[in-house]
Amino acid sequence: MNSTDVIKVNKVFNSFEELFKQIQINDGMTISFHHHLREGDNVMFQVLKSIQKIGVKGVTLACTSLMNTHDFIADMLGDGTVSKIQTSGLKGKLACMALSGEMPEPVIFRSHGSRARAVSDGELKVDIAFIAASAADIFGNANALDGPSAFGSLGYGVWEAKNAKKTVIVTDYLSQSILRDISISQSYTDAVMIVPSIGNTAGVKAGSLKEKGNPRDSVIASNVANTIINCGMELDQSAIQMGSGSVSLQVGRHLNGYMKERGKKFKFGLGGITQDLIDMLNDGTVDSLLDVQSFDPKACYSIKNNKNHHEIDVNTYANPLNKSSAVNFLDIAVLSATEIDTDWNVNVLTGSDGSIIGAIGGHQDVAAASKITIIAAPLFRNRIGVIRKKVNTVVTPGENVDILVTDFGIAVKESRQDIIKSLTDKGIKVLKIEDLYKKCISFTSEPRTISFTDKVAGIVQAPDGKVQDYIYKKV
Amino acid sequence: MNSTDVIKVNKVFNSFEELFKQIQINDGMTISFHHHLREGDNVMFQVLKSIQKIGVKGVTLACTSLMNTHDFIADMLGDGTVSKIQTSGLKGKLACMALSGEMPEPVIFRSHGSRARAVSDGELKVDIAFIAASAADIFGNANALDGPSAFGSLGYGVWEAKNAKKTVIVTDYLSQSILRDISISQSYTDAVMIVPSIGNTAGVKAGSLKEKGNPRDSVIASNVANTIINCGMELDQSAIQMGSGSVSLQVGRHLNGYMKERGKKFKFGLGGITQDLIDMLNDGTVDSLLDVQSFDPKACYSIKNNKNHHEIDVNTYANPLNKSSAVNFLDIAVLSATEIDTDWNVNVLTGSDGSIIGAIGGHQDVAAASKITIIAAPLFRNRIGVIRKKVNTVVTPGENVDILVTDFGIAVKESRQDIIKSLTDKGIKVLKIEDLYKKCISFTSEPRTISFTDKVAGIVQAPDGKVQDYIYKKV
Repeated sequence: MNSTDVIKVNKVFNSFEELFKQIQINDGMTISFHHHLREGDNVMFQVLKSIQKIGVKGVTLACTSLMNTHDFIADMLGDGTVSKIQTSGLKGKLACMALSGEMPEPVIFRSHGSRARAVSDGELKVDIAFIAASAADIFGNANALDGPSAFGSLGYGVWEAKNAKKTVIVTDYLSQSILRDISISQSYTDAVMIVPSIGNTAGVKAGSLKEKGNPRDSVIASNVANTIINCGMELDQSAIQMGSGSVSLQVGRHLNGYMKERGKKFKFGLGGITQDLIDMLNDGTVDSLLDVQSFDPKACYSIKNNKNHHEIDVNTYANPLNKSSAVNFLDIAVLSATEIDTDWNVNVLTGSDGSIIGAIGGHQDVAAASKITIIAAPLFRNRIGVIRKKVNTVVTPGENVDILVTDFGIAVKESRQDIIKSLTDKGIKVLKIEDLYKKCISFTSEPRTISFTDKVAGIVQAPDGKVQDYIYKKV
Repeated sequence: MNSTDVIKVNKVFNSFEELFKQIQINDGMTISFHHHLREGDNVMFQVLKSIQKIGVKGVTLACTSLMNTHDFIADMLGDGTVSKIQTSGLKGKLACMALSGEMPEPVIFRSHGSRARAVSDGELKVDIAFIAASAADIFGNANALDGPSAFGSLGYGVWEAKNAKKTVIVTDYLSQSILRDISISQSYTDAVMIVPSIGNTAGVKAGSLKEKGNPRDSVIASNVANTIINCGMELDQSAIQMGSGSVSLQVGRHLNGYMKERGKKFKFGLGGITQDLIDMLNDGTVDSLLDVQSFDPKACYSIKNNKNHHEIDVNTYANPLNKSSAVNFLDIAVLSATEIDTDWNVNVLTGSDGSIIGAIGGHQDVAAASKITIIAAPLFRNRIGVIRKKVNTVVTPGENVDILVTDFGIAVKESRQDIIKSLTDKGIKVLKIEDLYKKCISFTSEPRTISFTDKVAGIVQAPDGKVQDYIYKKV
């Protein structure tokens, strides 16, 4: 070609001012962020402050989830920079604002699968996806495996990049050579924004992911492992998702020992990937890991060096429009609950006092697809009962739940006679959920009813986008 | 979930009869195939025979390219099974049929970039992509790196899978576990069809890819290397595509030595990847390889084991709608020609006798984007001149070509004074293309004009989908 015609593809920006000349951001746009860095995220702060500075208003913030570290957004809702929020969960100040009716519009809560669906079926049109990546190259390839802030799988970011109108990779590590590991291809990247730091990866393991030395959790974990081993499912070559909390980590250890002794192997471990699953991969008790989100930055080493540890995007994880999504091949899933009711409906988003304290995560998606869905929870927390007559918010409908494992026993749904028989045959006592409810209130007494107004503060979607439940403004 | 509701996702089929119950194929559908297996492909035969057997008619065959091994399609055009052909190239019987006007409709010829564009902008809507893969797993993940018929990059197939309405992986190697290397995700796969053999990988290196021991090629290769080294482009950290023929292989060896001696390194090598580029990667004279098509099954080992050897899809290779495509970062490209004219227009599709003998490949895409485009060709072949007053078919317009290197000297386009000066300063004689033309006809004399009818036998697209030229039925 003529030398004067050479296409100049310079994607790299060092100032938001220059970036926003190239990637136009206007009032009312929808912008998105992922939450892989969890409480350690510093990308949303830098991007939103820059947007606030140039006076853009009325932005819809579509985040895969929001944490305490995002409290600063409260001010931006106040001054009109942000006008709507869509997320999997809320915490801290933002949760309070939502419940007290201070948000300009109801918050839309989606599961990870529903989020994957919403960006792919057009319900959620993202104008600009700002994707924190721990490394990018000058051509726009990106990963979360290299650089000082490496955090593991970039599973949410990958799907955002494929579906957003424009994609901006935000990183603190720029390679002049093509990255060795490419999670987001240059083909999907419109710009690479260099910032001093994308965050603090120590924040990835904050909050619910911390292992507590709590004996109650050990009892629940032991009960869960016992249930899984004896529920009648052949574990060899089965697929499992175990969750990420203190209980799950211990369940992993139990199962690892059990499988190792018997020379058995799970076909794959799915979901948020924890150190115990990586141990199982290394010990040969799980064949492959499908990692949409790493709950430990140590996963980087495993993803890079173990070809059976796969980074998957959230579409492959749980998009309900994708018949091939991995959740559809799950045999056993262990999930948590803030509350569960005697109709088996599960809440993971609000507490019994009505406050927003959690996130939907993949709860709905996994429960709907897994052949056996186990809820692991203590009977009560801080003297508040976990089992209710009716949960405050239905996140996962009872029809998708099979077993409740607590520190005071195991309940199995009436319709799962197959599981009841198998457990009973193995000498495990199976209760009715009503029994556990009675046990619960024998400690806590009947909880008071909380009062809400009829003003909608949040809409909880089902994976298909229909309304699953509403969250109302508190009195 | 209830055990009775378990989603049955069985994707694996052992008979085409069963497959076609699941993946409906109807009259008039458009189906696609890639040509990674080149003359060794046996997938198109098995699929088309099965379609013919069930009596489906009027199929549009959209192939990334067609070879001699696909001669059997002639019969299927005869009996109405196939009614239209879209491809990058034609050979053998099909080429003869097209030129003699026996095809029911004109053949559409597209470059690889144009094909990538056509499937992504909707010009070419593929109903079912049948994708030969050397390995698949029961979930539908696929690659071309494992199994007895491994052939390397699956770059065309990956983009087909993402854009076709339905994707059928055709393989002879099924893994019960998740593949370690995943080129096509289960999310894009509707079915996996097991056949006894997908083909013979010895056929990948057939035809133009064979290295000939011909002294003329050695002279051209030496001239090309000399031109690249002295054209004024700083080679350290530059990006190069060298093509795949006998000349290119030798150019690679020259450049490898040159770069090694000087401690220089190309940033990336692009395109069809040959053994000499893999040698350069291993020798450290090229930093990364971007492999849309492996011209040697040995590339499998390199892709699997060298993280700087990247499989890229054809969108990332050369889709003109993708500003980030790799061709846009090319500094130097070496391309071939069946003919070139004194206006620098290049033909790679038809011969001087009017017959269809080649394929567009990435020619148009690379020439349009590379900062310096070199055509390497002998002055004449079998006494037929390669330089003409006017090429028989314009595939790549002269405006995108800079240099012609032959066995009788080097010509540089008048407008590239930068290159002319640099070469002359280094003591390299630079000719005008007219000089080479005169030299050519001094050997061959003025070629006879060939007669065509005004019936269109083929449409040669430009990368953007506009008509670049027509191929007419011969008299």
